[in-house]
Amino acid sequence: MSTGDETIGTDKGQDDAYMLDRRRVAQILYAVDTNDKAELANLMEPLHAADIADLLEQVNAYDRARLIRLYDREFDGEILSELDEAIREEVIAILNPQVLAEAVRDLDSDDVVDLLEDLEEPQQEAILDALEDSDRVAIEQSLSYPENSAGRLMQREVVMAPEHWTVGQAIDFMRERSDLPAQFYHVVMVSPRLHPVGNVTLGRIMSARREVPLTDLREETFQVIPADQDEEDVAYAFNQYHLISAPVVDDEGRLVGVITIDDAMAVLDEEHEEDILRLAGVGEGSLSDRVIDTTKRRFPWLAVNLVTAVLASMVISMFEDTIARFVALAVLMPIVASMGGNAGTQSLTVAVRALATRDLTGSNVWRVIRREVLVGLVNGLIFAVVMGCVGLLWFGSPQLGAVIGVAMVINLVVAGLAGTVVPVMLEKMNVDPALASGAFVTTVTDIVGFFAFLGLAGLVLL
Amino acid sequence: MSTGDETIGTDKGQDDAYMLDRRRVAQILYAVDTNDKAELANLMEPLHAADIADLLEQVNAYDRARLIRLYDREFDGEILSELDEAIREEVIAILNPQVLAEAVRDLDSDDVVDLLEDLEEPQQEAILDALEDSDRVAIEQSLSYPENSAGRLMQREVVMAPEHWTVGQAIDFMRERSDLPAQFYHVVMVSPRLHPVGNVTLGRIMSARREVPLTDLREETFQVIPADQDEEDVAYAFNQYHLISAPVVDDEGRLVGVITIDDAMAVLDEEHEEDILRLAGVGEGSLSDRVIDTTKRRFPWLAVNLVTAVLASMVISMFEDTIARFVALAVLMPIVASMGGNAGTQSLTVAVRALATRDLTGSNVWRVIRREVLVGLVNGLIFAVVMGCVGLLWFGSPQLGAVIGVAMVINLVVAGLAGTVVPVMLEKMNVDPALASGAFVTTVTDIVGFFAFLGLAGLVLL
Repeated sequence: MSTGDETIGTDKGQDDAYMLDRRRVAQILYAVDTNDKAELANLMEPLHAADIADLLEQVNAYDRARLIRLYDREFDGEILSELDEAIREEVIAILNPQVLAEAVRDLDSDDVVDLLEDLEEPQQEAILDALEDSDRVAIEQSLSYPENSAGRLMQREVVMAPEHWTVGQAIDFMRERSDLPAQFYHVVMVSPRLHPVGNVTLGRIMSARREVPLTDLREETFQVIPADQDEEDVAYAFNQYHLISAPVVDDEGRLVGVITIDDAMAVLDEEHEEDILRLAGVGEGSLSDRVIDTTKRRFPWLAVNLVTAVLASMVISMFEDTIARFVALAVLMPIVASMGGNAGTQSLTVAVRALATRDLTGSNVWRVIRREVLVGLVNGLIFAVVMGCVGLLWFGSPQLGAVIGVAMVINLVVAGLAGTVVPVMLEKMNVDPALASGAFVTTVTDIVGFFAFLGLAGLVLL
Repeated sequence: MSTGDETIGTDKGQDDAYMLDRRRVAQILYAVDTNDKAELANLMEPLHAADIADLLEQVNAYDRARLIRLYDREFDGEILSELDEAIREEVIAILNPQVLAEAVRDLDSDDVVDLLEDLEEPQQEAILDALEDSDRVAIEQSLSYPENSAGRLMQREVVMAPEHWTVGQAIDFMRERSDLPAQFYHVVMVSPRLHPVGNVTLGRIMSARREVPLTDLREETFQVIPADQDEEDVAYAFNQYHLISAPVVDDEGRLVGVITIDDAMAVLDEEHEEDILRLAGVGEGSLSDRVIDTTKRRFPWLAVNLVTAVLASMVISMFEDTIARFVALAVLMPIVASMGGNAGTQSLTVAVRALATRDLTGSNVWRVIRREVLVGLVNGLIFAVVMGCVGLLWFGSPQLGAVIGVAMVINLVVAGLAGTVVPVMLEKMNVDPALASGAFVTTVTDIVGFFAFLGLAGLVLL
């Protein structure tokens, strides 16, 4: 299936496509063990910088340090760009300063910005010092835009042409310039005041006659990105409108740079990752973080959960007398709470995603809430019957079966309602719904679940 | 901030960037109410097909049908491509067959494939019948590749050149051809047997002298995609190696098509969405699905959860006598289970993501498991102290405080262990860890939590 022409040293089997080849990892570590510099360079040569970064992340800290020292001058700047933040700082500290300077000098300016953003002050300085003055100024300018903004994401090199030019003029202009960016896909047409007015793809320029005006070839979809726009919105625009590249403008609407789809794709990937981890109560971070950092990051969510769990316990303690007389209630009550929690998580995840993709708006919020409540009602009724039977068969009490059934319906309806209303309200209050919805919704379903079940039991069974 | 040059009718404010403008939605619905065809066409004209699709998804079914009938011949095929599956079938059923035929004829072949995949047989036939014979054959060929494979994702039009050509030959060739694809970024160099051997970007061709051989300009990173590779792996390769386009080859390694980054980005987006929803126990689907479909999709996960909750209840019922004597146990036991469930979800989410991004492999799995267990231990110890105090202060029993503290440590350690081992094992067994991990891990933490807490209480308090 592989053509033998491509050379990246990853496994191409259907199951583990693009997984780092374990044998090669073992060979590399063996070369490190035997201090065999030539063999190491040889084994690493076919690997893409992204794969080398993965390799460095996956081996332990001791092997990593030895590998980097042995690899020495072969170390490429792109590997740094691809590394996880935690490992990156470690690697920079290990690298010979001269190798580091060389590695960084080869990088594109937007990659250097990406690298610098996450570093501590002294490491930032060390890298900036290694750069030539002109590069340094350009990078400091980029860093003057807010974090996570289009201004930081863009590259500053843009190929532009006056809007009145023809294909021939554009081609001659490009073929005369020696400093075209390595990757570009569009020529941006600009007005005399440098406002971008349209995009023309290189493919169209290639296939049109020389006398055709550029404006005749302009792309139908054209988006201009303000430099201070959040990168999340930039990624959304690229995905929504299938953009390949988009011009970035300053406050006065003048062209200052261009963002290409590969950067937007990386942002989309990060934002999704962040959302998934936030929904699970895990902050940002990576597999290679230390135990102490991971513990710190997981702690807050568990602490919030402890408070909500204690609140739920207080509800239970209101019914201690009832439980003392019917211990079966203690056996069954976690079922009601657990089902409510799960149904609530289902609803809130759908709502959080729909908010992120702009699919849940003022136009349909009431319809979505109604639907979630109805779904909770239907599923609640089904599980009420099931649990009613379980209650009856297990404990021989039709009243107990009825109580757990009714509590189930109540809790699943409330789960659907809270699972939608909570994220929508949080979004309105400018709190990230992915981060905070879970705690609120499970608090509601725990409290309602215990209260409905034990309260009804108190009324019916006593 | 807006330049006034771009025309897409979405709100560009910082908070709601790219959100559909509510006023425009209201105006559109008013035009539908007053049956004002000209005004409707006028209001819709500046909207991108993706925004029109969002609009159709967000209004209710009655307005949607009226809008589509009034919009009539203006309806563009691209809107269909952008619609959610559920709504898409509904819209196709409403569309005048002639309008539908026209709309589909304008689409690129890969978009038609994307459209057909999800449709029922009779609707598929209706659309295929509307196509010209040559298009029909091409589309049926694409449909012969497995679902979700690179073969379905690729476009068949490729710009290729023999590997021995110069820049001048490539330019002359392209400028003579009238049927170049609308969007292309690379010229693929091929061997005489049509095996792709390298990529050259149009930008580099533009800026090189005519006599330079194409091979001198080849991109450093070059990936060849087998046509039967899963689209998820394709998206991973694009993201990992920062590809813009990649040639697709058949079993013999011959060039059959090309995949571009915008398609890979759409797949990445879908796969992430799927992972998020699966982790929450929600199947695929969209906000616009009917109540009955949503209920069916949510039901299986809730049913699995009911079984695991009943298992946990059985553990509790083993300790009925203990609970009957110390009702405080019933009050406190959900706290231990809840903390374990949350810690387990944290660990499993990190593990599931790391598996998806190929960051968790044989090289580091033991180190990750050890880390998760240590994180569970440290957090467990902290919360053990907190809950020990709560137990003591609330119920005045140091023994009860000690029991809940020890149970907490045990359950958080088990949560870290199960949260990592379960997804890794599921992946090894080729079961999607995003889909199934949650149920297993919470079963473990529920059972261990109740057993540890109530069992210890039985030993210490009785």
